[in-house]
Amino acid sequence: MTLIHAEDMEAIATGAAVYGTGGGGDPYLGKLLAQQAMRTHGPVELIPLDALHGDDLVVPVALVGAPTVMLEKLPGIDPLVLALRQLEVRLGRCAKAMMCIEVGGLNSTIPFSVASVTGLPLIDGDTMGRAFPELQMTLCTLTGIDACPMTLADEKGNALTVQAVDNAFTERFVRSISMDMGGASYAALYAMTVVQARRALVPGSISMVQRCGLAVFNARARHEDPVAALLDATGGQYLFQGKVTDVQRRTDGRFNRGTAQLQGTGDCQGQTLELLFQNEFLLARTPQQVLCSTPDLIVAVDQESAEPVTAEQIRYGLRVAVIGIACVPAWRTAPALELVGPRYFGYDIEYQPLAQRATP
Amino acid sequence: MTLIHAEDMEAIATGAAVYGTGGGGDPYLGKLLAQQAMRTHGPVELIPLDALHGDDLVVPVALVGAPTVMLEKLPGIDPLVLALRQLEVRLGRCAKAMMCIEVGGLNSTIPFSVASVTGLPLIDGDTMGRAFPELQMTLCTLTGIDACPMTLADEKGNALTVQAVDNAFTERFVRSISMDMGGASYAALYAMTVVQARRALVPGSISMVQRCGLAVFNARARHEDPVAALLDATGGQYLFQGKVTDVQRRTDGRFNRGTAQLQGTGDCQGQTLELLFQNEFLLARTPQQVLCSTPDLIVAVDQESAEPVTAEQIRYGLRVAVIGIACVPAWRTAPALELVGPRYFGYDIEYQPLAQRATP
Repeated sequence: MTLIHAEDMEAIATGAAVYGTGGGGDPYLGKLLAQQAMRTHGPVELIPLDALHGDDLVVPVALVGAPTVMLEKLPGIDPLVLALRQLEVRLGRCAKAMMCIEVGGLNSTIPFSVASVTGLPLIDGDTMGRAFPELQMTLCTLTGIDACPMTLADEKGNALTVQAVDNAFTERFVRSISMDMGGASYAALYAMTVVQARRALVPGSISMVQRCGLAVFNARARHEDPVAALLDATGGQYLFQGKVTDVQRRTDGRFNRGTAQLQGTGDCQGQTLELLFQNEFLLARTPQQVLCSTPDLIVAVDQESAEPVTAEQIRYGLRVAVIGIACVPAWRTAPALELVGPRYFGYDIEYQPLAQRATP
Repeated sequence: MTLIHAEDMEAIATGAAVYGTGGGGDPYLGKLLAQQAMRTHGPVELIPLDALHGDDLVVPVALVGAPTVMLEKLPGIDPLVLALRQLEVRLGRCAKAMMCIEVGGLNSTIPFSVASVTGLPLIDGDTMGRAFPELQMTLCTLTGIDACPMTLADEKGNALTVQAVDNAFTERFVRSISMDMGGASYAALYAMTVVQARRALVPGSISMVQRCGLAVFNARARHEDPVAALLDATGGQYLFQGKVTDVQRRTDGRFNRGTAQLQGTGDCQGQTLELLFQNEFLLARTPQQVLCSTPDLIVAVDQESAEPVTAEQIRYGLRVAVIGIACVPAWRTAPALELVGPRYFGYDIEYQPLAQRATP
């Protein structure tokens, strides 16, 4: 058992932004929420799944909607607790631990705030090993765990329960309800027993994210290269460095979509890279070849500080390094690629694992 | 106690189309559903509210969405039963009787099918005394009865529970969920105790609708004027007769909106009338004056047969008589007019009770 205190959230938030691969919302906000909760309600126990009984209930909570909206409509803790409590009422039983649905972005820091307020421990793990833009894109879906019943709540006090026939329908309902709730909403979903969770969990991913953040902080403190430290901590692969020359983006209500153009600098001088995103960075390609694609992770960080750059922050003039990180093996099966592979997002390319792709 | 058999649904459907004031969906479909259910499961007991105990639960069920969609996506009974059962689970208690939320259109015949299938009686009454296009437009809203928790289901097996902070928010969620469910959905809502229902009920309105339908049928059988019989049975006021010369309509997802132009015939020769609708006919006006407006009822019927014409059926060439019927007094208070008066629908006129308006 590890206790996570308010000050630990710094490294977790930075690591979560790395694994958020540009999406999942700004973990900065989730960090502030978690820290605020911890200062009043105390630290959070981070526990391995095996610390619980097989039929204990674990409940992930998450923010749903376009991350951009969260920049104006700041998240709160009360609606998350409301969503959790409504789900408990629906299920007729209480959660024994909180969980992160994804280890990237806001949704890997938000559950800390609920865990702190409710006094529940948080499972060290998540159901993606990264962040993805749609609700059904979890290892739960692949292992037959239903997102429903799920509850959605908002800061006004509205709470809806969704019992859909499949996770794709759930996604559909949730997105339009989130729009009605002001572009983003608070969800408790994928409630599961510990036995079920064993099939869907990427174990230890919260600790991993924390170590990743610490590696960057330590490198900065020692005046070493934080990008190199990041590559080392994540086992990532250096893909490109360059200056952002153009960004096209649109928020279509459900997602932040767009493209960023990069002009190579340093050893990439004279080359260009295109980053395509739908909340997360999903495809990195030069005019000649694809360097990395979903489900592998594409991370853009500031060249100097290795501070992760989200898809909603990326803008003209930023100098970034682009890093690829191999996804967890479970995402590389045929059914997994149907769920989260390049073709699902409309990119007409075959998925090739990062290690097999050539570097520029 | 009255038993309503399959053959009784004919008169009820015709009467419901009159009180549907052009909206509420085609009662023909609801009639077929009810008759189908009754042939298998038997007749439905129509009971007064007072036949139940004060704390018994009564539950209205209704179809929600753009009525036009129902012409292609035919309604079914199973999703209504699913909505009812999910609401009972949510409330932790069983319904003792079904109820009609509105006495006009599809939603006054649909509850008969659920009552027949479940073996529950149906309350003789409704919460509008007519039909209205939005969920919060009930006497329940005026008397502090919440539409929530309400459940929405569809024919695919999806079921959602809505717990909104007010009935206007409920309307908002319900409309977009209905869109996701294919343009229309099945709801169980405004669950209330008998004590609550006493405040919100228009008592006897199902019998009234049945008498209205029978009066038309009898006049037809006796070769008397069915329009005169309709005026007599409803206490309605003859407003206009004419030929439809133009119809402009659009389905904006939530509603059928539009305008029908009429050229006077018979004693209205040389005059024109405009009928404005949002699902229901809400305003009848000549170039000089308003003849009738919401919340009073505007009914268009075939000049010969007195068969009601819905806003989605009205078309060039139809010869119709337009009738005004006074709404129940509860709709004429200031808070009621805020909810359902002409200004709510964007018509910049002051409401005047039908009896005080001049006839052309």
